[in-house]
Amino acid sequence: MKLQVALDTDFGNALQILKAVHAYIDIVEIGTPLIFREGLSIVGKVKADYPGLTVLADLKIVDAGNYEATIAFQAGADIVTVLGIAADETILGVLEAARSFHKQVMVDMLQIGDVLERSRWLIHHGCDYICVHLAHDLQSGSETPLSSLSDLRKQLPEAPLAVAGGVQLSMIGELGPMRPEIIVVGKAITNAENPGRIARTMKEMILS
Amino acid sequence: MKLQVALDTDFGNALQILKAVHAYIDIVEIGTPLIFREGLSIVGKVKADYPGLTVLADLKIVDAGNYEATIAFQAGADIVTVLGIAADETILGVLEAARSFHKQVMVDMLQIGDVLERSRWLIHHGCDYICVHLAHDLQSGSETPLSSLSDLRKQLPEAPLAVAGGVQLSMIGELGPMRPEIIVVGKAITNAENPGRIARTMKEMILS
Repeated sequence: MKLQVALDTDFGNALQILKAVHAYIDIVEIGTPLIFREGLSIVGKVKADYPGLTVLADLKIVDAGNYEATIAFQAGADIVTVLGIAADETILGVLEAARSFHKQVMVDMLQIGDVLERSRWLIHHGCDYICVHLAHDLQSGSETPLSSLSDLRKQLPEAPLAVAGGVQLSMIGELGPMRPEIIVVGKAITNAENPGRIARTMKEMILS
Repeated sequence: MKLQVALDTDFGNALQILKAVHAYIDIVEIGTPLIFREGLSIVGKVKADYPGLTVLADLKIVDAGNYEATIAFQAGADIVTVLGIAADETILGVLEAARSFHKQVMVDMLQIGDVLERSRWLIHHGCDYICVHLAHDLQSGSETPLSSLSDLRKQLPEAPLAVAGGVQLSMIGELGPMRPEIIVVGKAITNAENPGRIARTMKEMILS
């Protein structure tokens, strides 16, 4: 299991958090709002400062798959995201770009009706990660992405799953048996008083 | 009917095209790939050079509606896009941000199963434009967005519709009776040998 930190704030704040957490994470996510603010040049800056980290550009591509993914890979991204609800052609275009750059694709499963059926198609076509994602705008209630992940893991014992959307420190233990390849954490780290300490604790729990 | 030009290339090329077409268009769209490349600061630059133009930021928001729309409106955008397949809460968040900035929301209908039902919900909640959109990645065949627009217009005679996705000069005449509020044109203008001439011809046809 790898730990991915989603940076969704402004650039200055994101750099501060990254400085505090970089030793404890595997993947740094340049979040959608941060890309909207700064553009993808931020990927190159992060890569230059932290060459050992995998950088994910959370574009949530939904059209012009090959074209948009290529922009991200040219900017230095290691992983790009595409929406699972995108047209098949769009996802295949993103995969094509990833293959030509020897990079990876994470599929964000936001708003998909039949997650199992779509996951099977995505895996069959070589998507690298299937990310079960509870939308930020749906996190006000008691819902977490854990039950969706658990359900999908039962159906797909060997699939490369990831999980995102309100993941807290208290959930890390529960996540273990569900074997996500990537645990994506946002505010639980970035809004913490001491982001480095939370990231380190999560990483230790994941490794133990 | 208003003419919107979608700028999906790089910044330098986009500025050149804008210089050629600005007198003939109503809305300039800062396209998704251009936002990915440059970030939303480009909106302010375009606004400064062309204060009379309406600027649309094609974010295709699918989560964190209020937060992401606010970034675009703070950057100076007049209209922001949200995906119709986003969660209701996300769309309501985008609308909330738009209302507080006295700005507008266009809903991109990509990948929606029941366009009519969703349109009714979107209009009921005050979305400003419903954009029937044939995905770029689905434009290789003979399909155009015109039949979808025509179908929806028949069901919703007074709805504020827009149309996007492979609109060509030859389609402008056909579009008239369908009364879209906004016609979005991309490559037919931006890839033309003389973008200004095509934009002017389209504008004249729209006005005639």
